[in-house]
Amino acid sequence: MARTTNRRPVLKINLATDAEPRRRPDELAAEEPLEIRLRQAALAVTMRTPGQDIDLAMGFLLTEGIIRTASDVITAQLCAGTDTPNTYNVVDVVLGADVPPPVVDPSRNFYTTSSCGVCGKASIDAVRTRSQFDIAADACTVPARVLAELPGRLRAAQRTFDRTGGLHAAGLFTAEGELLALREDVGRHNAVDKVIGWALREGRLPLAGHVLLVSGRASFELTQKAWMAGIPLLAAVSAPSTLAAELADEAGMTLVGFLRGPSMNVYAGTQRVIV
Amino acid sequence: MARTTNRRPVLKINLATDAEPRRRPDELAAEEPLEIRLRQAALAVTMRTPGQDIDLAMGFLLTEGIIRTASDVITAQLCAGTDTPNTYNVVDVVLGADVPPPVVDPSRNFYTTSSCGVCGKASIDAVRTRSQFDIAADACTVPARVLAELPGRLRAAQRTFDRTGGLHAAGLFTAEGELLALREDVGRHNAVDKVIGWALREGRLPLAGHVLLVSGRASFELTQKAWMAGIPLLAAVSAPSTLAAELADEAGMTLVGFLRGPSMNVYAGTQRVIV
Repeated sequence: MARTTNRRPVLKINLATDAEPRRRPDELAAEEPLEIRLRQAALAVTMRTPGQDIDLAMGFLLTEGIIRTASDVITAQLCAGTDTPNTYNVVDVVLGADVPPPVVDPSRNFYTTSSCGVCGKASIDAVRTRSQFDIAADACTVPARVLAELPGRLRAAQRTFDRTGGLHAAGLFTAEGELLALREDVGRHNAVDKVIGWALREGRLPLAGHVLLVSGRASFELTQKAWMAGIPLLAAVSAPSTLAAELADEAGMTLVGFLRGPSMNVYAGTQRVIV
Repeated sequence: MARTTNRRPVLKINLATDAEPRRRPDELAAEEPLEIRLRQAALAVTMRTPGQDIDLAMGFLLTEGIIRTASDVITAQLCAGTDTPNTYNVVDVVLGADVPPPVVDPSRNFYTTSSCGVCGKASIDAVRTRSQFDIAADACTVPARVLAELPGRLRAAQRTFDRTGGLHAAGLFTAEGELLALREDVGRHNAVDKVIGWALREGRLPLAGHVLLVSGRASFELTQKAWMAGIPLLAAVSAPSTLAAELADEAGMTLVGFLRGPSMNVYAGTQRVIV
């Protein structure tokens, strides 16, 4: 059911040696579609690595602004869909009677991201309207020397990556650098949704005083998800985009990029990083 | 208009030296939403790096199976949208009268990927149905020593990455290793759509005998886009997913992963790689 990796034969070539190409089995990161349904009606399909699918669905619903608390969801379960045999690629969610259904614009079936506007400012406005948490008021601080240790801790915990080299990771840490949850996925937004969905189900939202570390780049979408979960500090091993930095500014979020051991860049909310 | 990068102040910290943290301007990869409209009706919003937006829209329409040739599009132009001032974040497309409009399922407004099924097999079936090109019949071969040189050529041509470290790249090469087109974007699917859209407008489809190199991982979605454009060899600097390898198998496409100078893994279509 949780097919995190699959083996396939691969032809390995190395021109730098005299060795003949050799065929051997290799572990690949699993990728399968997950359909999220609301009372049997398809809401979203995302390509994800199977596993923690209820967390993924819950995190998606929260970070998209469809639910505000775990109690907005009556049931969320992996169901059979129409496939035989059951592929465990459908999560069916029943929302509480008082939860407004998501606004469906029939002209937007290809709606490929959670951005709502036709310019960055409109997208930022849309997130501000939807987030229920005031991150700017979060007075937590994190020593730079704690941040410096996080990439190593994340990497050490990435068991699947070690086998496939093919997964993004998201890790939730305390301000003291303790790893609370790590999720890996072929889609970086899925890894973040799985972490946030876990925290939501654990009753930990808002995630005041916490740090979210992502293994790749910091995009607008990931910054939005952090804001929706009340996370005051988002760190990325690689570069942020302009819109990610602007959204962090607007949210009062601290955004750290190029976090590589002792060196790091702080793009927004510098007051929380103590040197 | 083409804001590929933007400058922002950043606080640079390096605990490995005695240097004080210093505030200096840094270049960030630009990210803005692009809305693709069909006769004024929103079809898709994607977060992209501005530039080559007509190519992006054309490539998206082709790889999603909405158009089959450049002549299916009567006009495609950056338009004002409803923003003041014009943000150049809307491309309005008018299709020929004989082009069937895309099927709109009103329950799927969050349709986050181009996958259609609730299992990988259904997704693969959907691509097979839509692609007009028979890649399996493409008898081209590429020497492994040519492939070995492509990452270096892509990297040398990545001017924006050099400034920001924050962009994915896609490069289209001949089987002899000549770089024909390079595009960079915060979204790797956008970089591929921009390359394919360029080739479509240049009248180069199907891209028989060509190699597409992507700077990151090879996902189902990127493999699908390559198939829709008739590209027989997809190479990635990093790992492929299981579903990417399965789709390549099904298409008769050659899939190379972990292409790092002289070493590489061939996951499908090994007959085209000559050692």
